[in-house]
Amino acid sequence: MATVRLMSDEEAAANPAVAAVFDDIRATRNSDFINNFWRALAHDPAALARTWASLKAIMVADGPLDPLTRELIYIAVSTANGCSYCIHSHTAAAKAKGMSDAQHHHLLAIIGMAAQTNALVTALQVPVDAAFQVG
Amino acid sequence: MATVRLMSDEEAAANPAVAAVFDDIRATRNSDFINNFWRALAHDPAALARTWASLKAIMVADGPLDPLTRELIYIAVSTANGCSYCIHSHTAAAKAKGMSDAQHHHLLAIIGMAAQTNALVTALQVPVDAAFQVG
Amino acid sequence: MATVRLMSDEEAAANPAVAAVFDDIRATRNSDFINNFWRALAHDPAALARTWASLKAIMVADGPLDPLTRELIYIAVSTANGCSYCIHSHTAAAKAKGMSDAQHHHLLAIIGMAAQTNALVTALQVPVDAAFQVG
Amino acid sequence: MATVRLMSDEEAAANPAVAAVFDDIRATRNSDFINNFWRALAHDPAALARTWASLKAIMVADGPLDPLTRELIYIAVSTANGCSYCIHSHTAAAKAKGMSDAQHHHLLAIIGMAAQTNALVTALQVPVDAAFQVG
Amino acid sequence: MATVRLMSDEEAAANPAVAAVFDDIRATRNSDFINNFWRALAHDPAALARTWASLKAIMVADGPLDPLTRELIYIAVSTANGCSYCIHSHTAAAKAKGMSDAQHHHLLAIIGMAAQTNALVTALQVPVDAAFQVG
Amino acid sequence: MATVRLMSDEEAAANPAVAAVFDDIRATRNSDFINNFWRALAHDPAALARTWASLKAIMVADGPLDPLTRELIYIAVSTANGCSYCIHSHTAAAKAKGMSDAQHHHLLAIIGMAAQTNALVTALQVPVDAAFQVG
Repeated sequence: MATVRLMSDEEAAANPAVAAVFDDIRATRNSDFINNFWRALAHDPAALARTWASLKAIMVADGPLDPLTRELIYIAVSTANGCSYCIHSHTAAAKAKGMSDAQHHHLLAIIGMAAQTNALVTALQVPVDAAFQVG
Repeated sequence: MATVRLMSDEEAAANPAVAAVFDDIRATRNSDFINNFWRALAHDPAALARTWASLKAIMVADGPLDPLTRELIYIAVSTANGCSYCIHSHTAAAKAKGMSDAQHHHLLAIIGMAAQTNALVTALQVPVDAAFQVG
Repeated sequence: MATVRLMSDEEAAANPAVAAVFDDIRATRNSDFINNFWRALAHDPAALARTWASLKAIMVADGPLDPLTRELIYIAVSTANGCSYCIHSHTAAAKAKGMSDAQHHHLLAIIGMAAQTNALVTALQVPVDAAFQVG
Repeated sequence: MATVRLMSDEEAAANPAVAAVFDDIRATRNSDFINNFWRALAHDPAALARTWASLKAIMVADGPLDPLTRELIYIAVSTANGCSYCIHSHTAAAKAKGMSDAQHHHLLAIIGMAAQTNALVTALQVPVDAAFQVG
Repeated sequence: MATVRLMSDEEAAANPAVAAVFDDIRATRNSDFINNFWRALAHDPAALARTWASLKAIMVADGPLDPLTRELIYIAVSTANGCSYCIHSHTAAAKAKGMSDAQHHHLLAIIGMAAQTNALVTALQVPVDAAFQVG
Repeated sequence: MATVRLMSDEEAAANPAVAAVFDDIRATRNSDFINNFWRALAHDPAALARTWASLKAIMVADGPLDPLTRELIYIAVSTANGCSYCIHSHTAAAKAKGMSDAQHHHLLAIIGMAAQTNALVTALQVPVDAAFQVG
C-alpha cells in the first residue's frame, strides 16, 4: 500500500549509505528489527541519514525529558495528526519503555481532553489572557 | 475577538451554577484568577460544569502520570491542533508546574520531529509492521 | 495582514468580471456589504466566479438541508480546520439565520464531543464494525 | 488493528463499572449492539463512564438541535479530523435517524465547500471584518 | 468500505448527467479508466459536474503552473490533510506526468521539513515579521 | 506573543553556536535580515543548527525541484497545517524567487481544490483503486 517499495535487507546491504544507517539503527536499538518506515525512506539515503540522526539526537540521546515521556508526547502528536502507522509504532515503543496500561489510559484521556478543549476554544475564538503572554 | 462575550465576575456571581464552578476552579488552583476560556464557556453552565469536572479528573486528580508530563502532552496536542490560546495557557501551566527551559526546548524538538515523521509516513503510506499489531 | 491586498469597491467596479460577481453577491444577500474574503479572492476573477457560484448553489439555493443547518455544519468544519476568519463569518451568518444562543451552545458541545471521541478513536485505532460498512 | 484489545461481553459482564455503562448504552439505544469504540475504551472504566455520560447529555438528551442535525455536525467534524471510524459510525447513525440520500449529498457538498474556503482564507490570511466581531 | 456504493459503468450510462461527465473525464484523460472518487461522487450529479468542471479548470486547462508542479502541490496538501486515497491517486498522477524518483524524494523532504517547522513555529507562537506583511 | 523571547543580535553574538548559524543564514541568503523564527528557536542552539542544516539541504542546495516549486509546496503544506507565520514567510520567499501574481492565484486554486476533494474523499471513505497501488 506504500507509495514506494519497502527496501529489503539485501538491497540495503548493497548501498553503503543505507547500510550504515541500518547498522546504526540496529546497534542503537540492540535489535535486528528495522521497521517499515526506514525501509520506505531508504530510497533517499540523505533523507534517511538526516532523519535518523535527528531522531537519535531527540529521542535516544540523553536529555531533560525521560525516554517514556518522549514517547507519550510522540503518540500525542501522532494522534492529533492522524498518523495511524506512527500511533502503532510509538505505542509499541512506549510499552517497550515501560508504559503501563494505566499510563496508557491516562495518556488517552489527556489527548481526548485536549482535543475537546482545543475545539471549544477555537469555536469560541477565546482571546489569550494577558497573564499567559511571555514578558 | 471571541464569538461570545467573556463572562464577568459579577455576571458569574449572579448565576449559582456558574458561581459554583468558578469557586471550585479558584479553590482547586488556589488562585483568584479565572482565565478567559472558562469565562467564554460559562454561558452554557452545563458545559462549563461537565468540562471542568473532566479536566479536574484528568489533569488535577491523582493519577499515573505526573502533573508536568500531563501539561507537556497537552501542549503537544494543542500544537498539532493549532490552538494558539491553548498553547499559551498550557505553556504557562507547564512553567508553573516546573518545566525548565531545557525541558521546553526538548518538548519542542519532539513535537517538531513527530510532525516531520508523521508527514513522511503519511506521504509514503507506510504499512503497519506486524510487530506493532496488538495480539 | 492578508497575503494579498483587499480589493476596494472602486477597483472592483473597474473590472467587469469582478463587478458582476460583487453585484450578484449583493443582490443575493440583499445587502451592500462585501466581506473581506471576496475582496481578497477578487484578484483572480475566475476563482471568484467559480467559488461564488459553488457557494450559491450549496449554501443559498433550495436544497434538502435548511439554511441554518448548513451554517452549523460550516462552523463545525471551520472549527476543526482552525479557520478563525471562517468561524467568525459563519457564526455571524448563523446568527443572522436565527441561531439562538442555546443552539450555539449545543453546537459547540457537539463539536467538542466529536473532537474528543475522534481523538480517542484515533489513538485507540478502533477497527470499523461490520455493521457500519455499506452493503 | 487497535492499540488495545476490544473488550468482550464476558469480560465486560465481569466488571460492574463497565457492565453498568454497557447496560445503559443498550437501554438508551434499545439495541443489544455495543460498537467497537466502547469495547476499546472499556479498559478505563472511568473514561468509559465519563465519555458515555457526556455523549448521552449532548447527543441523546433533549436539546435545541434535533437528533439528525447533531449527527450531521458530528460527521462534519469527524471528516475534517480524518477519523475514518467516526465517519462510518456517525454516517450509519445519521441514516438510522432518517438522513436521506439527498441530505447526505448536501452534507458532503457543504463539507467540501467549507474545506475549500477554509483553505483559501487561510492561504490568503484574510483579516476578520469588523462586522463579524462580537460587540 | 465507502459510505456510499461506487457507481458502475452500467448505472452511470443510465443517467445522462453522470454519463456526460464520465465521457468528458475519459475524453480529457484519453483513457477509459474512471477512478473510484468519481464513482462515489456520481450519486450527486450536480456535485459531480461542479467538481469535475473545477478540477478540469484548475488541473488540466492551460495555466501559469505546469501540470507536474500542480500534482506536487496536490500531494503536499493531501498529505497534510491525511487523505490516503488522494495521496495514492495524485502520486500516481504525478508519476504519469513525469515525476522522477529523485523529484518524489525531494517533494517528500520538503513536505516533512514544512511539517516540522510549521509545528515549531506554532508551538513557539512566533509573531509575523513586519517584512512579511503585504503593503 | 511568542512563548519564548525573540533573541536579539547582541544575545546571539554572545553565543558562538548561535552566532555561527546566524552568520551562515546571512551568508547563504546574502542579507542581514534574520526572521523571527530563527530568533525564537535560537534558545536551543542544537535545534537551531539541526533545523537550519536540514532547511539548507532541502530548500537551498541544488536538487531536482527548482527553488520556486519548493516554496509553492511549502506554502501548500503550511496552509493545510494552518501555520499563519509560515504562510506569510514562504509567500514572501516565493515572491522573492519570482512567483508571479498569476502563479500565486493558481497555487491558491490548487490548494483550495485539493482541500475540497480531500474532504469529499474522506467523507465518502473512497477505497484506493488497484491501479494506484505500487507494484
